[in-house]
Amino acid sequence: MKPSIPKGTRDFLPSEVRQRQYIFDTIRDIFELYAYQPIETPVMENLQTLTGKYGEEGDRLLFKVLNNGDFLAKADEGALDSRDSTALVPSISKRGLRYDLTVPFARYVVMHRNDLTMPFKRYQIQPVWRADRPQKGRYQEFYQCDADAIGSESLMLEAEYVLMIDQVFSRLGLDVEILINSRKVLYGIAETAGVTDRFMDMTIAVDKLSKIGWDGVKTDLVKRNFTEAQTQFIEKLFSLSWEDLAGELRGEVGRSGIGEINAVLGYFDPSKLNNRLVLEPTLARGLNYYTGCIFEVRSTEVEMGSLLGGGRYADLTGVFGMPDLSGVGISFGVERIYDVLSELAKFPSDVITQLELLIIAVDEEAHRASFGIASTLREHLVKCEVYPDVAKMKKQMKYANTIQVPYVVMVGMQEANGDLILKDMQSGVQETLGKAALVDKFSQQSSGNS
Amino acid sequence: MKPSIPKGTRDFLPSEVRQRQYIFDTIRDIFELYAYQPIETPVMENLQTLTGKYGEEGDRLLFKVLNNGDFLAKADEGALDSRDSTALVPSISKRGLRYDLTVPFARYVVMHRNDLTMPFKRYQIQPVWRADRPQKGRYQEFYQCDADAIGSESLMLEAEYVLMIDQVFSRLGLDVEILINSRKVLYGIAETAGVTDRFMDMTIAVDKLSKIGWDGVKTDLVKRNFTEAQTQFIEKLFSLSWEDLAGELRGEVGRSGIGEINAVLGYFDPSKLNNRLVLEPTLARGLNYYTGCIFEVRSTEVEMGSLLGGGRYADLTGVFGMPDLSGVGISFGVERIYDVLSELAKFPSDVITQLELLIIAVDEEAHRASFGIASTLREHLVKCEVYPDVAKMKKQMKYANTIQVPYVVMVGMQEANGDLILKDMQSGVQETLGKAALVDKFSQQSSGNS
Repeated sequence: MKPSIPKGTRDFLPSEVRQRQYIFDTIRDIFELYAYQPIETPVMENLQTLTGKYGEEGDRLLFKVLNNGDFLAKADEGALDSRDSTALVPSISKRGLRYDLTVPFARYVVMHRNDLTMPFKRYQIQPVWRADRPQKGRYQEFYQCDADAIGSESLMLEAEYVLMIDQVFSRLGLDVEILINSRKVLYGIAETAGVTDRFMDMTIAVDKLSKIGWDGVKTDLVKRNFTEAQTQFIEKLFSLSWEDLAGELRGEVGRSGIGEINAVLGYFDPSKLNNRLVLEPTLARGLNYYTGCIFEVRSTEVEMGSLLGGGRYADLTGVFGMPDLSGVGISFGVERIYDVLSELAKFPSDVITQLELLIIAVDEEAHRASFGIASTLREHLVKCEVYPDVAKMKKQMKYANTIQVPYVVMVGMQEANGDLILKDMQSGVQETLGKAALVDKFSQQSSGNS
Repeated sequence: MKPSIPKGTRDFLPSEVRQRQYIFDTIRDIFELYAYQPIETPVMENLQTLTGKYGEEGDRLLFKVLNNGDFLAKADEGALDSRDSTALVPSISKRGLRYDLTVPFARYVVMHRNDLTMPFKRYQIQPVWRADRPQKGRYQEFYQCDADAIGSESLMLEAEYVLMIDQVFSRLGLDVEILINSRKVLYGIAETAGVTDRFMDMTIAVDKLSKIGWDGVKTDLVKRNFTEAQTQFIEKLFSLSWEDLAGELRGEVGRSGIGEINAVLGYFDPSKLNNRLVLEPTLARGLNYYTGCIFEVRSTEVEMGSLLGGGRYADLTGVFGMPDLSGVGISFGVERIYDVLSELAKFPSDVITQLELLIIAVDEEAHRASFGIASTLREHLVKCEVYPDVAKMKKQMKYANTIQVPYVVMVGMQEANGDLILKDMQSGVQETLGKAALVDKFSQQSSGNS
């Protein structure tokens, strides 16, 4: 049997695990700096929790876990007889795999409301599953990386997110644009254009702007029965500079959206950010969920979808019977960030190589001595390895080259006094030194690194 | 709808995530020190990979994932008609959830053999799923934490594991016994007792010794058709001291087992370990998998099953068509280690509290100033939070108490000169200081901590 893994899933080699961990750690450090707390939820959720939360398409893409034991004993006989897969599911599957981190978070907040202190700032870095057709860059099992602050309306939280986003991408060495808008500004444009009754239609059309351009959007608006005049006016409003737009918006909602964005920007000096902050009236971020400020991040270096999305929502937990809990959150697209860092070769070189040195020995006696040398090095927190077998030096050096270890220590070559030979594998330079000097040299490096 | 999670699964609160992370990090640090490399495998494996690897019981306990779409279209009609759940599974489910980390590792090694350099030392810390009946301390979704070294027969690897185990438990502040034996010594006892043809029967009986005592084991042996004389002789051999047993073992396998254990112990000085190393001839560690040295760890402080198991095996990957790949591995029982640390209250206190200080403000103006103070502190890597809303001081102090933050900074109380009040929440002591002094005080602490 030739083994394989399911389509759309991945194994990770050590170098990939370390590179992914580097991204997670960078984001986690910033989350912690801003007092976000980690939570974890189970991979399996009750299907009751998940179903109906992601639309019809989402329900289809949920992975469902078969009930254990004799699941047919309780199967819906009608659905079985009519071979109706969809109708059969609820009677043979009560659990599913997490589809995102938002619905589980909402469920978590409702279940643990008595253990949580509001405002509550949480982060969560865990995998999710979607039965999407696998393709390049799209997986059925992938990580999400979310932060949310709930139980406060303060726009300071939005301002903090701008700084957090700026700092994460700056630490990762990536240049990005941070786009910001407010759903209220979008609504304000609908107000000013007199089309609030078709706000959703307008949003759906404008949401496609970056993909299809204004010609496409206008065609789409006309198809949705906007008049030519409305369509023109909408384009004109969306094409204004942020300042001019602010002057044009007449409705109450639109003006409050402008006011909120100004309040967010009032907390810090945008010119001091490492990345450009762009006020972007056409930014929509999907349909129904967000109600206030919205964020998106795009790479300026690589053609790639958004690297982050987020925004304020008015009702996280209403569907679980706890209404009016508002919050604001962001979600880093860690899989895409990985692709960008790979494409630009921007992973720091020391991310992959953790091992500091390999000890190799000429014979059995030297091999035994090597174990003691390694033990002493490890007491000084030096990450090292002893080639486990007594083998030809050539074979051991080949192993050293393959694993790309920066230094090799040869034991047993200097028979006179027990001295060791240390070889810098990059430069090829060798030096002879005693065990104490070796330990000294590397233990200083290690404490410097950690 | 009142939300819930599946039986046998868990949500983790921030303090629990941090405590679990502390255990994982402690183990990971030691794995890295000994040059083990991280890998990750997908949660979903093909059922073909998993089925038949864990016995009949294991097959029953596998969580199976329903095929997406119209799964009944390809369902086995005969199985459907006869309502045979077991026979139906293969036609409606091709994926399952990982049951342990060993089979996925074996599958991984075979699939990536061309990318791996032997000897290969890997570690893996990921959750697994088993449809066991949930009960106290037993979950359907739980973490495993494994290290394996493959492609070398060197007993140095066994010696390294003893040191690694000793160091992990020592760093965790737990006192344990490290039990060691060899499957060859067990076999040697069967050789000496003349019962090699019933080695497995003998092993199964003796494996229960710690639970049922010698009376129980002897009854079990008699039931398995061992003669009274054989039973007596087996008890006598198992009751010998390690040294005396070594003298008694006559067969080739048994003598080589004794030789291997001596070779392992020859690498280090057992008296210098932090924990007691026990040579335990009755240690068996299950049935078929292990072939050489075996390990187990038990707490000396708390009544709890084994906290670690491991050993050498001769054939990791034969079932996937790559024969004779031997290795040696250990698996930390991280869920039990969590329970032991909880019961003994041995988690370091700074594991839970990451947040260093909370900034609270008397009014809107002070609140805006707070944001700048927090930004400066964060530039110096001080983990801090600003209470996001302008609220009564009493409410904000109540929040500070609830989240158990060690320090609170009050902004806007000293109207004269912009000075701040810093309150030590444990002692209640307050001091008045300027922003620069505050930043100085905490940024030193933070760099000291990290």
